[in-house]
Amino acid sequence: MAGIKDVAKAAGVSVATVSRVMNNRGYISKETRRKVEKAMESIDYHPNQIARALQKNQSYFIGIIVPDSNHPFFSDLIKYVEMSANERNYKLLVCNSLDDPDKEAKYISMLRQNQVDGIIMCSHTMDIESYRKVPFPIVSFDRFISSTIPCVGSDNYRGGELATEHLIGLGCKRLLHISGPLELDILSNRRRDAFVITSMKHGVAYDIIEGAHNKLTFNYFWTFIHENLTPERLQEYDGIFCSNDLVAYALYLYAQQHGIDVPSQLKIIGYDYHSFTRMLQNPKLTTIMQPSDRIGVMLTNTLIQMIENADGELINNTTVDVTLVKGDTT
Amino acid sequence: MAGIKDVAKAAGVSVATVSRVMNNRGYISKETRRKVEKAMESIDYHPNQIARALQKNQSYFIGIIVPDSNHPFFSDLIKYVEMSANERNYKLLVCNSLDDPDKEAKYISMLRQNQVDGIIMCSHTMDIESYRKVPFPIVSFDRFISSTIPCVGSDNYRGGELATEHLIGLGCKRLLHISGPLELDILSNRRRDAFVITSMKHGVAYDIIEGAHNKLTFNYFWTFIHENLTPERLQEYDGIFCSNDLVAYALYLYAQQHGIDVPSQLKIIGYDYHSFTRMLQNPKLTTIMQPSDRIGVMLTNTLIQMIENADGELINNTTVDVTLVKGDTT
Repeated sequence: MAGIKDVAKAAGVSVATVSRVMNNRGYISKETRRKVEKAMESIDYHPNQIARALQKNQSYFIGIIVPDSNHPFFSDLIKYVEMSANERNYKLLVCNSLDDPDKEAKYISMLRQNQVDGIIMCSHTMDIESYRKVPFPIVSFDRFISSTIPCVGSDNYRGGELATEHLIGLGCKRLLHISGPLELDILSNRRRDAFVITSMKHGVAYDIIEGAHNKLTFNYFWTFIHENLTPERLQEYDGIFCSNDLVAYALYLYAQQHGIDVPSQLKIIGYDYHSFTRMLQNPKLTTIMQPSDRIGVMLTNTLIQMIENADGELINNTTVDVTLVKGDTT
Repeated sequence: MAGIKDVAKAAGVSVATVSRVMNNRGYISKETRRKVEKAMESIDYHPNQIARALQKNQSYFIGIIVPDSNHPFFSDLIKYVEMSANERNYKLLVCNSLDDPDKEAKYISMLRQNQVDGIIMCSHTMDIESYRKVPFPIVSFDRFISSTIPCVGSDNYRGGELATEHLIGLGCKRLLHISGPLELDILSNRRRDAFVITSMKHGVAYDIIEGAHNKLTFNYFWTFIHENLTPERLQEYDGIFCSNDLVAYALYLYAQQHGIDVPSQLKIIGYDYHSFTRMLQNPKLTTIMQPSDRIGVMLTNTLIQMIENADGELINNTTVDVTLVKGDTT
């Protein structure tokens, strides 16, 4: 059977270089890595990474737990996490919690049993203690869990402020915010805080309707709007800030059905911006873009930093900038 | 440290039952599995599945290689594959080939080194020989590779027929088909075959524009339409069958911009149907739905069948039914 010496010979590099590539250690130029990989392929050398993982106590597996991998925001995020992980030779295990605490716990246990090096947590249904007792690195998306679990998220407060100022700047006098569920201490609630404070600062009247726990389907939001709004009540408002694009789009369709013109009578702004669904929107939503590419790369890099500096100091939280994307609904 | 006996005791079942749950063998009721899992959790018992994998020569990892996990069709598919794999205790590694043959080959090698039990291949950029030499089970989506690699796909021929008959039934006299790339022998080409034969059968004039290799973004299709069509040429047709919903939607927007009314002057029908983007379509496309849930479950079940009956006979290809979903564009 072919061995590491044969790889070195075929690639025209030293055994030490092959070892560095295989162990993912030290600086290796892209070109050298490529040469070594080609050589491994050409002599049909496939080292058993599972055996190596056991020996070295590092698997190069990372897990990501999301509420729904098919939701456009998480589907964006997973792609960028996978691609940036792959660049550093980590493999991604994808888990759908469907926002079920039992499923979430079972996935964490499964990932632990499979010796993942770390987890990116994007589903937040369990209490904080359950995450704290996990004995390997975790990075959290949009929720503060503890000082040992770094958090990466968009600047939710700034997003809420931008959205509210945009509506007020366009002359809106009576605002509504459809928030996410507020009972959990997650960072997206800051969108609501910024909405309240910005409205107060400008002396503009406002209401809030609280969404239920992350039901991430359009149909859910469509029903939600029918249950929580009437056309009469909708006409009381001239500007609505929605905590995500799905509810914003459902609201736009509801207004249209009831003869309320958007944007002349009612202005609507969302939150998220999905690269794929954006193209299909007609009209295009005005929205706050939280950049899933930058968030995805940051989640991966933060986790790998924790994995590779296991004895290092605490790692800071990261806040990624948001921007207002003007569309046709304001 | 806690052991298997402690789990049995905490769960109130026999050691043999715990072993069956852990080894994923034999019939175990959902309730019993749940009890054992709870017990493992409660006594903090996390068996090292990587060590077991090495011992048993089975990892319970499966890989899925897609062109782009963020494309709505593949994002649908990945969710259903992950959920059905998880039900049978398999874990899913997601890989984005971005339709690059080098990346595809590298992922196959990576999955092989990580001892996956099998691969679901949805990206088709390499030649057939490269897949044939992979020494573990592969299931292919929408491409015949060899008699030892089962293929799961929607009934592409029937889909093309349904779409073409729908347009002709509505009185269209001059048809256009925007196909996928035809140089590869992939099953989606049968949509084009059915389009040609159905048009001929009804004596209706037709043209075909061939798409380039799977560039799965809306922006690509938007540019593609501008490069391959003019408003004048578009007016020559009264019915267009597009090989996917993104190109159909781009075409709809292009027609609208050039004052061609859909559906009175021009009828457009797509192919795919994405559960999420459907909600955002305004107007909604008429399209052929290939059910990603049934295809996803079938891909998983076929692969697991191959893994668990390694010495069994050849497994048949599977064709999943398609249906016409009437929208506003025909």
